[in-house]
Amino acid sequence: MKTIYVVGIGTGSAEHVTIAAIDALNRADVLFIPDKGASKSDLADVRRNIIARHVLKPEPRQIGYAVPRRDAQHIDYGQGVADWHRALADIYAMLICDVPENGAGAFLVWGDPGLYDSTLRILAHVTEPIRVEVIPGITAVQALTAAHGIALNRIGEPVLITPGRKLGAITTDTVVMLDGQMAFRDADPKLEIFWGAYLGTPDQILIAGRLGAVCETIINTRILARERHGWIMDTYLLRQPE
Amino acid sequence: MKTIYVVGIGTGSAEHVTIAAIDALNRADVLFIPDKGASKSDLADVRRNIIARHVLKPEPRQIGYAVPRRDAQHIDYGQGVADWHRALADIYAMLICDVPENGAGAFLVWGDPGLYDSTLRILAHVTEPIRVEVIPGITAVQALTAAHGIALNRIGEPVLITPGRKLGAITTDTVVMLDGQMAFRDADPKLEIFWGAYLGTPDQILIAGRLGAVCETIINTRILARERHGWIMDTYLLRQPE
Ligand SMILES: C[S@@+](CC[C@H](N)C(=O)[O-])C[C@H]1O[C@@H](n2cnc3c(N)ncnc32)[C@H](O)[C@@H]1O
Ligand SMILES: C[S@@+](CC[C@H](N)C(=O)[O-])C[C@H]1O[C@@H](n2cnc3c(N)ncnc32)[C@H](O)[C@@H]1O
Repeated sequence: MKTIYVVGIGTGSAEHVTIAAIDALNRADVLFIPDKGASKSDLADVRRNIIARHVLKPEPRQIGYAVPRRDAQHIDYGQGVADWHRALADIYAMLICDVPENGAGAFLVWGDPGLYDSTLRILAHVTEPIRVEVIPGITAVQALTAAHGIALNRIGEPVLITPGRKLGAITTDTVVMLDGQMAFRDADPKLEIFWGAYLGTPDQILIAGRLGAVCETIINTRILARERHGWIMDTYLLRQPE
Repeated sequence: MKTIYVVGIGTGSAEHVTIAAIDALNRADVLFIPDKGASKSDLADVRRNIIARHVLKPEPRQIGYAVPRRDAQHIDYGQGVADWHRALADIYAMLICDVPENGAGAFLVWGDPGLYDSTLRILAHVTEPIRVEVIPGITAVQALTAAHGIALNRIGEPVLITPGRKLGAITTDTVVMLDGQMAFRDADPKLEIFWGAYLGTPDQILIAGRLGAVCETIINTRILARERHGWIMDTYLLRQPE
């Protein structure tokens, strides 16, 4: 049977990769590298950087593949994602054909494969029997709190992780990801925000303070940075001040 | 000024350590190793293992320190923790005296320093001016989902991370940590549970299924394992079945 490693590579810094991830990349006969389009080529650079620095095996076969765009305008969010997964499953099935019998292929996944990533769900659609092994990675949540030098949680308290589109009234300390809409604009200005973009990369930006005081700065910083880079990934923690 | 690295080392596997963590441990002049008592010596072994395998700098000075016990019976949970932090802050202040001027010391932290860990809060009590740098680590949450080969979240949905003592009715997919009371026993038996103990270690145990079907097995497995090892660390995800 073929083994497919789903390897978390962290969210921006080649130094956030684990020994287990490096080992899996070195054991794999084939590495699958997503190509999300020119605008996100900085992200592809991070992946290439990790491979160049840590994959010692001479000439591992790297196979690039184009990632189809998800229909973000789909009226049913879940259905839009499901359609996109099926399109990707066909691509994955073809990629896996290139893995030698009893050999291994590896998907490089941004951050951790368990957090807002579809690789595992797409692999579940592949009909060829495969053994899937997941290598955990540093998530944007850990990159955010480490960069700010703060704890994620208050002592003994829960924390919610949510996509921006599901952000409601803040009753629990909350980390927001996948937030193109800047949902923080509608939150209580008395909350504290710890915001970070391009975490782990040389372009990392951090802003923290009372939401009411820093909201405009974050909005403007975000717009300018997005224009300059052509893309942005940002994450933030919202909480009641102590 | 002295630099203090707060280094996340993952939750059991020496392979889950990152390159950034290894670099920080190698840069540090002094490594601070907590001693939580004989019963948790397996945990100390993981730390020693990481140092033995990855710290190349000849004879880094390792300084062990006894961790005082927290008063778990304190009627006010928050106050019990705060008292404990103050006791530890005095110990930290003394440890930091051993860091050479303009040198660096490193605290090895289980998992990620941001998640249910007190090192950052305790360092905030230290009066000597220090520069704190946090190195993120793989958390028990990532170790759990990777071991089960599952995603943490449902597509586009939030996830709650909570200590066992704050587990209420499950309205969101929920990861439970710090649960000596086995709070899952009171949850809806129709929920799915993905349970893991000693994650990342050779003793890792995984159990998954409908809570009603596997609850007894988890309880018995947990009791037996705890007796055998003298300690247990377990984490689980509860969610509505798809
Ligand atoms: C599709 S999710 C992938 C998350 C990833 N699997 C992880 O473990 O962090 C993408 C979202 O993660 C967050 N993110 C990922 N990388 C980031 C970075 N370097 N800086 C800030 N946020 C990041 C952003 O919220 C972004 O919208
Ligand atoms: C004080 S918290 C520390 C969490 C750690 N900082 C992290 O990032 O995972 C300890 C709790 O983490 C979870 N945990 C830590 N290591 C674990 C392991 N190897 N297996 C299962 N659960 C673990 C358990 O829920 C345990 O009660």
